[in-house]
Amino acid sequence: MEKRFADLLRQSIDEVLDGQRTGRFDVKTLDKTEKTYLGTKVEIVARSAFGLGYGRAMDYEIAGHDVDAKFTGDRTWTIPKEAMGHLCLVMSANDHRGRFQVGLIRITDDVLRAGYNQDMKRGISAQGRQSIHWLVPDGTLPTNVLLSLRDEDRNAIFRASDGHRGGGNGGQLRINELFRRAAFRRTSDSPGRGCVVDRTTALTVASQQDSPKRVRDARLPHHLGREGIIILGHQGRHPQIARSLGLPVPDKGSWVAARLALAAEGSTDQVVELDGRRYVLAHEGDLPVPAPAEY
Amino acid sequence: MEKRFADLLRQSIDEVLDGQRTGRFDVKTLDKTEKTYLGTKVEIVARSAFGLGYGRAMDYEIAGHDVDAKFTGDRTWTIPKEAMGHLCLVMSANDHRGRFQVGLIRITDDVLRAGYNQDMKRGISAQGRQSIHWLVPDGTLPTNVLLSLRDEDRNAIFRASDGHRGGGNGGQLRINELFRRAAFRRTSDSPGRGCVVDRTTALTVASQQDSPKRVRDARLPHHLGREGIIILGHQGRHPQIARSLGLPVPDKGSWVAARLALAAEGSTDQVVELDGRRYVLAHEGDLPVPAPAEY
Repeated sequence: MEKRFADLLRQSIDEVLDGQRTGRFDVKTLDKTEKTYLGTKVEIVARSAFGLGYGRAMDYEIAGHDVDAKFTGDRTWTIPKEAMGHLCLVMSANDHRGRFQVGLIRITDDVLRAGYNQDMKRGISAQGRQSIHWLVPDGTLPTNVLLSLRDEDRNAIFRASDGHRGGGNGGQLRINELFRRAAFRRTSDSPGRGCVVDRTTALTVASQQDSPKRVRDARLPHHLGREGIIILGHQGRHPQIARSLGLPVPDKGSWVAARLALAAEGSTDQVVELDGRRYVLAHEGDLPVPAPAEY
Repeated sequence: MEKRFADLLRQSIDEVLDGQRTGRFDVKTLDKTEKTYLGTKVEIVARSAFGLGYGRAMDYEIAGHDVDAKFTGDRTWTIPKEAMGHLCLVMSANDHRGRFQVGLIRITDDVLRAGYNQDMKRGISAQGRQSIHWLVPDGTLPTNVLLSLRDEDRNAIFRASDGHRGGGNGGQLRINELFRRAAFRRTSDSPGRGCVVDRTTALTVASQQDSPKRVRDARLPHHLGREGIIILGHQGRHPQIARSLGLPVPDKGSWVAARLALAAEGSTDQVVELDGRRYVLAHEGDLPVPAPAEY
């Protein structure tokens, strides 16, 4: 249940950001029309994800009940008067904190604030929140990688193509920098090195049609290979290499990057053998060693 | 130029309809939020399609000029006062008529109606339209197949799964009916039989993840094969079969369906030989003959 809501909220946010076309990754940069539409998108994606029917008066029919979908990126939900007496599926997501909530509440006068907003809607009050039956009281959104990066790393990625705009390889330069930065990153979901880079992030950074090709090319010697950086996907030996090095194992459509060093005698680090050499994850001060040609 | 605008307007409309999730194909069924958002989507898709930069005060910078993007599905464009003195790229599309227009106009008091709407915007007046420099004065939108069908055909398609909702094969039954109806259709873009069914139409009718699989399965003997209906794509011998029969040749991601009959002695119809038999397009009264097992 938590996973399905987490995925559908991530999907809805990513579709409205439209990173492949716009390079955007932060809901705060959406305009007013888009923020309003995000609620509609969540309603549509949730209906589809759970195979819900249309209600008579409300958005959904669930087990014979009319249920309205309400999404907010802010603190509370605003309820139109047509929803009075009905059940609402209330959903909220805060991509900056990476958290979301889902609950059910029956709308009565008691749970609403006294005042109306300019659209003649009333917010659910602080006390009213206590009447919410939580389905997911405090869920984890799939990571928005670009939001989670330090400003310094993110800026370096988007500036990697400065002076190359309009040229053919701007997207390649940005993708290279994305994986270069990702190769050194520690995150909460990856206690060792290497953070998972999802497809949306690659699409947003490349901002062009064939992002997966840009990722494959980033492995070449003249891009990241000579710096000892490998990029592992979900296919072939990659999951096994990731496991051997203690890296997260990427799902289909995502990748993890790491910088390699040659294993020193007596090293206690996790080791993987590639092309007859023994590699470990590089530590920050290690000298660059070329990545294996094939892996 | 016309083709690029046609494609980007089609793409924008289709994305907001979100047929795969919603089964919708008619912009008239969009809610108010979605209709407003369609203008934003067109702005985004056009920026991406033409690789335009952001303007200082307006949506785009084109050749050093600030240009605002304005889209309407109605008769005229409403212009906010910030656009006064600026160039506007005005775009309109009418999916029911299959037509669109694109032009450029510099906003001055002269080209606007006197009255303001509730958002304090003013429409371009009938006289003001004469100041539009048309880039595409009367363009053809790529066909919205579901809109273009007769009500009778469309209803039959969507009702083909009645009683099977929630079951596994509802999408298959609707896809079968789509191609069964398409096999007999004459359209302006196809003077003979067979209309091209695009990917969006298949996604909308199937309303599930793997629509192309549903299309492949529709060819099987126990679906449409036994009725003599073939479905041709862009691969293998299909384009050649389509040409031999005088059918439109589908692009990648689209299909054309046709019902076959055995060629009579002395027939003047276009013939194709498959599995050692000579086939022609069936006429309406012809008896069903099974389609070849492999084609």
